[in-house]
Amino acid sequence: MKLLEERIIKDGKVFPGDILKIDSFLNHQIDVELMDEIGAEFHRLFEDRRPDKILTIEASGIAIATATSRCFGYIPVVFAKKTAASNMSKDAYQAKEHSYTRNVDYTISVAKDYLKEGERVLILDDFLANGEAMHAMIDLCREAKAEVAGCGSVVCKTYQPGEQRIKDLGYQVEVLARVKAMTDDGQIEFE
Amino acid sequence: MKLLEERIIKDGKVFPGDILKIDSFLNHQIDVELMDEIGAEFHRLFEDRRPDKILTIEASGIAIATATSRCFGYIPVVFAKKTAASNMSKDAYQAKEHSYTRNVDYTISVAKDYLKEGERVLILDDFLANGEAMHAMIDLCREAKAEVAGCGSVVCKTYQPGEQRIKDLGYQVEVLARVKAMTDDGQIEFE
Repeated sequence: MKLLEERIIKDGKVFPGDILKIDSFLNHQIDVELMDEIGAEFHRLFEDRRPDKILTIEASGIAIATATSRCFGYIPVVFAKKTAASNMSKDAYQAKEHSYTRNVDYTISVAKDYLKEGERVLILDDFLANGEAMHAMIDLCREAKAEVAGCGSVVCKTYQPGEQRIKDLGYQVEVLARVKAMTDDGQIEFE
Repeated sequence: MKLLEERIIKDGKVFPGDILKIDSFLNHQIDVELMDEIGAEFHRLFEDRRPDKILTIEASGIAIATATSRCFGYIPVVFAKKTAASNMSKDAYQAKEHSYTRNVDYTISVAKDYLKEGERVLILDDFLANGEAMHAMIDLCREAKAEVAGCGSVVCKTYQPGEQRIKDLGYQVEVLARVKAMTDDGQIEFE
């Protein structure tokens, strides 16, 4: 997605530790017009998968998921909640996620009421690197016996294993900006 | 807002400890079409305040804020981040918030890059009860020397002190659903 790549080059910042910060328009400050363009693109990519729900994860995925829902005629959005502690609950599906950025394990969860057997779920997130968050959301769907209609990520670091890991599970993965390299002097290269 | 009150009566659940759960459409699963109606209503109420940015708080405020931004011609949204720990940073404005529901103190923060002197900031949130989150967001604006253009909440428990507390600071407060009582058998009454 050209518009997004241009924006990442313009406003993205590279930090030591292979960190790409795009929080001026995606995950702290939000450019809602760009979110709508992103939503339209995810709709184009997944239209034939006919999802009837979007699953994402708090907080950064919410603006992306709601913009996409609108393009799909307002299908419901559910965001998984993230807790550092393992708050076991009978009423929620839970999965483990390891954050490589923060080196912490999270438990993510969705109330059983909001993820049902047979639903066709489109999973969306902001970043795909090691694929931990995406994989945890797939686990939630499996627990619920919901069907994963597809997996979309706004940005992917293609030199990390996440994308292939999810594809190896047999799912369609679509990425809007494919970062193939970042240099220490702040250059970002796309595939 | 009639549509919202009807939805709260239909889908809201009252739990012991004065808890109103409306997470089937507002803050876990999200009805994006309703968010757009909410955004249109906030636009109507605050149009003459001419905000140029919306400040909210993760995670529940994000869908509300982005829907409202669209009605204001895509003004930027910034969401304050919530951390249990006091992660001091030179690059962020910070404020304290006490959660009465969870009985925990949070530090909320916004990067200094995304809240600037002189900006006219519309503060939005999902719930207004004791006014802690709203007050903390006002503190962030004051620190940044930004101007609070107004404060909006989707739901307010009018028998709790939050609304009056914010009004006493001199700000316009607008609420879309005013809950005046909840009974143990699950009845919800509006003003």
